[in-house]
Amino acid sequence: MRLRNNPNAEKILSSSEYVIMDAKDKYFNNDKPVHIEIGMGKGDFIIGMARQNPDINFIGVEKFATVMIKGLEKLEEAKLDNVLFLEEDATNLLDYFKPHTIGCIYVNFSDPWPKKRHYKRRLTYKTFLSLYEQLLVSDGVLKQKTDNVSLFESSLMSYNEYGMKFEKLSVDLHKSEYADNNVMSEYEKKFSGLGQPIFMAELSFNKGEK
Amino acid sequence: MRLRNNPNAEKILSSSEYVIMDAKDKYFNNDKPVHIEIGMGKGDFIIGMARQNPDINFIGVEKFATVMIKGLEKLEEAKLDNVLFLEEDATNLLDYFKPHTIGCIYVNFSDPWPKKRHYKRRLTYKTFLSLYEQLLVSDGVLKQKTDNVSLFESSLMSYNEYGMKFEKLSVDLHKSEYADNNVMSEYEKKFSGLGQPIFMAELSFNKGEK
Repeated sequence: MRLRNNPNAEKILSSSEYVIMDAKDKYFNNDKPVHIEIGMGKGDFIIGMARQNPDINFIGVEKFATVMIKGLEKLEEAKLDNVLFLEEDATNLLDYFKPHTIGCIYVNFSDPWPKKRHYKRRLTYKTFLSLYEQLLVSDGVLKQKTDNVSLFESSLMSYNEYGMKFEKLSVDLHKSEYADNNVMSEYEKKFSGLGQPIFMAELSFNKGEK
Repeated sequence: MRLRNNPNAEKILSSSEYVIMDAKDKYFNNDKPVHIEIGMGKGDFIIGMARQNPDINFIGVEKFATVMIKGLEKLEEAKLDNVLFLEEDATNLLDYFKPHTIGCIYVNFSDPWPKKRHYKRRLTYKTFLSLYEQLLVSDGVLKQKTDNVSLFESSLMSYNEYGMKFEKLSVDLHKSEYADNNVMSEYEKKFSGLGQPIFMAELSFNKGEK
């Protein structure tokens, strides 16, 4: 996020066919499932996922235009037809997506907001979980990755408190059974390169089984 | 656990005043809360806890007599009046304790039982959680520590699936806010000495809040 502000970023975004400018009923010309990444950063993860999964449509959400244009450069080179970007704050996502239409939400290496008075801004705080519950289809999943100990711990407690179901869990993703198909984000490459374990959780709102 | 079998172990245990030989209504001559450790091993944790917490009674449970006598040597030297040992399999604990009488259950560095067909033997498998729920007082807690990635992950999933409430969580206990009063078990000293992170979870059966 330490990029110098690019005053042309907004203009670059608004002139790209890969960037969603207005809310629509449908963003792709097909009925494949739609997955979104909140905080796509420079786009390595979402572009990698789109390459690996041509039968899924991906939308990368990012609130910083200056960061997003780095991803846009990569996307325009990759020329994928199953990725779009949306420059927006997560809290406004219901303006863009109808309830229960998203198959999967990815939250990768999101801001840990270490100060207690900022915990509410963490993307796994209960208000965000409520938002994800509204966005996801009934068998949809939330997938989180982080290197941050405190964020991971508080996220697990938040999921548990909210009544979410733990589908998968790893406290060392890169050494786990889930490592093979794992697509790395920019942060993930950096932190795992430093030898730090990567934490992963996959959750559903499938509460009704007990 | 790789101790050579000591044929005199049973005799040593049965002649010690610190070892519970029969089920009783009360094991201590006072009404302080009773905490139990399942799988006390050589006793470093339970003896350390008893020293640190004179207002709590501790009972160390261990199914291997040969291991327990190592703890007994330490206990007889420490001369604490708030610790007793019980040589028993965890599955039989309701023969010794009335329902809802235990304040806290500790499960430290328990056998990870890595083979799938043995998962049911893990001390955090749902059948054991049901046992703990019966043993614990209504505001009682289960406290787990382990260095084992797979055991920790499966335990968290098991707690979540059972509907337990996460009270505390750490994926690196010795660097966490909970490190200060932490009493180490033998395994904990060994594994943390090797630089491995220690995982910790504290749970209640306090489901009713949602």
